This record gives sequence, C-alpha cells and structure tokens, in this order.
Amino acid sequence: AEIRVAVLTVSDTVALGAGPDRSGPRAVSVVNSSSERLGGARVVATAVVPDDVSKIKDVLLRWSDIDKMDLILTLGGTGFTPRDVTPEATKGLLEKETPGLLHVMMQESLKVTPFGMLSRSAAGIRGSSLIINMPGNPNAAAECMAALLPALKHALKQIKGDKREKHPRHV
Amino acid sequence: AEIRVAVLTVSDTVALGAGPDRSGPRAVSVVNSSSERLGGARVVATAVVPDDVSKIKDVLLRWSDIDKMDLILTLGGTGFTPRDVTPEATKGLLEKETPGLLHVMMQESLKVTPFGMLSRSAAGIRGSSLIINMPGNPNAAAECMAALLPALKHALKQIKGDKREKHPRHV
Amino acid sequence: AEIRVAVLTVSDTVALGAGPDRSGPRAVSVVNSSSERLGGARVVATAVVPDDVSKIKDVLLRWSDIDKMDLILTLGGTGFTPRDVTPEATKGLLEKETPGLLHVMMQESLKVTPFGMLSRSAAGIRGSSLIINMPGNPNAAAECMAALLPALKHALKQIKGDKREKHPRHV
Ligand code: NA
Repeated sequence: AEIRVAVLTVSDTVALGAGPDRSGPRAVSVVNSSSERLGGARVVATAVVPDDVSKIKDVLLRWSDIDKMDLILTLGGTGFTPRDVTPEATKGLLEKETPGLLHVMMQESLKVTPFGMLSRSAAGIRGSSLIINMPGNPNAAAECMAALLPALKHALKQIKGDKREKHPRHV
Repeated sequence: AEIRVAVLTVSDTVALGAGPDRSGPRAVSVVNSSSERLGGARVVATAVVPDDVSKIKDVLLRWSDIDKMDLILTLGGTGFTPRDVTPEATKGLLEKETPGLLHVMMQESLKVTPFGMLSRSAAGIRGSSLIINMPGNPNAAAECMAALLPALKHALKQIKGDKREKHPRHV
Repeated sequence: AEIRVAVLTVSDTVALGAGPDRSGPRAVSVVNSSSERLGGARVVATAVVPDDVSKIKDVLLRWSDIDKMDLILTLGGTGFTPRDVTPEATKGLLEKETPGLLHVMMQESLKVTPFGMLSRSAAGIRGSSLIINMPGNPNAAAECMAALLPALKHALKQIKGDKREKHPRHV
C-alpha cells in the first residue's frame, strides 16, 4: 500500500471482552473503501486497548516510531467521562498539532448533532505519522473521516515531504 | 440541587467596588431559568475577584477540589487587554481540555458579532468540575450559555461517570 | 503610524534566493490598503528567514521585545511538511493565545477550499505585540487578513490597554 493505516480501538468494554468492537471494523471499512481518495490507503494494523493512558501511548509510539505508519486513527475515549483519556495520551506524543483537522471534524459533527461538541479529539504529527483521535461512536467516526477526506491525501503527501503538495490550491 | 453551579465574576472594576456586577446576576438568572434543561442546576456560590491570576486560581481550586462544584462559570477577563488573564489562570488548572465547547461558543458568538473573535475563553475538566470561561459582556455570556445548552446536561452527566451518557446520540 | 506592522516571510526557497517572495509584498500591500480600517496601520519592517525554528524565533523576539511592533504577521511554514515549523516557533513565545482569530481564519479559509484545513497557524500576544501566523499562499493569506479585519483594530487597541475597547459591542 502507498499509505499504511493503523486503527486503534480504545475501549474498556471491548478490551475486557465484555462487548463487540463496533468502531474498529467500521473504520477499517471506511478507510478501505476510501483507499483511492487517500492515495492508495490500506489498513495494515489494528489493536484494542482499554482506556488507559500508558497503554494507549505504547501502541501509538510503536506504530509511529517503529512501524512508521502513515496514518493512525484512534476510536473512542474522547468524551467527558473520567475514563476518557485518549486526547491526553495522544497530545503528549505529538510533535506538531493540526488544529484545522479538529476544526473540520467538529464543524461537520455539529451539523449532525449538538452532542458533537462533547468530542475532545486531538490530532497532529509525530515523525512521519499523522495521528487523529476520532469518537468511539461508529457513525460519528465515519462522519469525521468524511469531513477530512477532501484534504487528507494532500496532508499525508505533505508529511512525506512532497513539496509539490505545499500549495495544493495551485496544483 | 442535582447540579451545583458556581459563578465567578472576574473584574477589577467590580472587585474595587467602582461599578456594579452586571455579568454575575445575569449569568445566575440564565442558569436558574435553564435549570431543568441542565438536569436540575442551581447556582450555589458566587464570587467576585479582580483580574489577577492567583486570585482567580484560588477560587477555582476551592470550588473544584474542595466544594466539588459540578459546573464553574467564569465571567470576564477573556479579552486582549493586558489585564485579561482569566484563560491563563484557568488553563493551568485543567486536567482535560474541552475544545468542542469553545468551538460552539465561538461559532455562535461570531453569528452575532465579529467581535466574538476577541474572546480567548478556555474550558475543561478538573476532577469532577467542568470549568468554562465566558465573556464579561452579559449578552455575550448568555449567548455562549445558549450555545452550550443542547449538550451541557449530557456533558455534566458524563463527568459524573454515567456510562449511559457516553454515546448520547444513541440514547 | 499609529499601528506598526512587521511582516516575516518564512521560506527556505526565498531565503536561499531560489525564488521570488510572492507572499511578503502581497501582505504588505493588503495591510497598507487596509490601513484606515486597522486604525492607521503601516508596515515598518519586513524580513525573510528559512524554515528554521531558531531563526524564526530570533526575528519574532526582536520585533516584539525590542522593536515593540503592534502587529507581526508571519507568512508560510504552517503546512504539514517536515520543514513547516512556524507554528512551533511561534507558540513557544506567546504569553496569551488568541484562539478566536484562528477560528475565524480557519472558518473563512474553509469556505474557499477544503485545503484550508491544512493550515496549522498559531496566534497570540507577546508583550504589546499581536503575532499571527498566516499561510504562505498569497491568496490564502489575503483571505485570512480579510477574515480578521472586522475586529483587528479593536484587538490592537485592547492590547494597548484601551479600556473603552473592552466591550466593543457596546461602544
Ligand atoms: Na466553525
């Protein structure tokens, strides 16, 4: 694959085997069906961890620093409950923030439901990996993905250093 | 009350007794008249402090760590003048940021006036308290409150750990 | 001039002499033609630096701490490529963040193109200087400037401590 994608489901329930992972398979399917628009993307790794800062960090570090994933999506743990810590685990690892991705995801989520304001997603770049927190709700995650699709391919090319992608408006 | 709310007016003028507190009473009235939509909210404490980082922090710490307020609203000190330091006082205390609340308040403020862009509000969670900076202008604060109302009850339930509130879209 | 403005072009290409500075002169022209709406603004300094954190910081520190510029605009280095580090260089110097300016620039950019989400601009206050990152694309920077114009004069007056500007809605 041109673009290697990894999907991390963050959920106590799923990690404990107390419920099915509805978010992960749906996100994999969204990525794979958008493969061409993403420049040839394919999900090459998935994992499930509980809502635990150090366990989330461990996977994100492995996928970015060792496995050099191009795109890492996390699902869940972005809400307001005491167990929701995915943004905190993520922000400590980011070298660069990408606030525009958050703006677009929030803007589109709010068009669907005011509960969109309850997502605390973080997003940014570590090394050559783009890491994006998405809500655990499968529909909400799919909406976020749809919101990013128009520019995500260019984002990923820029991270790889493609200078021609610097001003995509002019391409 | 199910939901205990505290309102902090941040203003040199009011703290010095050099002018009336127009923001505080208005915010109290907005909260109390929205009590039901907020899950049974009532303002149980109010205070006035000057635009001083440590004085703002002292009250916020007492209200969150000792008094375990569910919702803490600050009014004022969010602008661009040298004395405006409420967001800086607040951000240092937050354990989790809630950027979606800021997005919605900003989005709605901008529909009323482009001067909305001059609010530098912060918002987030400390312990079991949700802390939200609002502008000192009473109308602007009321607009911010109105913007948050559709999801604020769910936000407060999530902070208390109600799992059923995790995906309110599905409730 | 009432409002002293400085414009920093951040670009390896321009700094190396390998290409013309299209962003800088365009931004100077936008500021000067908006002079009245900005409260009497004039560009009094321009510079070009490569995409290098310490070189960007050096200029920003000189312009804010020594030259006491009222408004500092940076152009470029806000994208996703490995060389894009202007927001990181800027954020370390800010005493106060101004998220509303970023929200408005993003909101308006997204109306023109979804690639607007790829801007990672930072903005905020250091001393008496307002520092705003803008995209390197001259059209995108002009759009950002247009988005800020309705409130930028008030922002700059507030930073200078004009209390009458605190609630401009009521002026
Ligand atoms: Na918006």
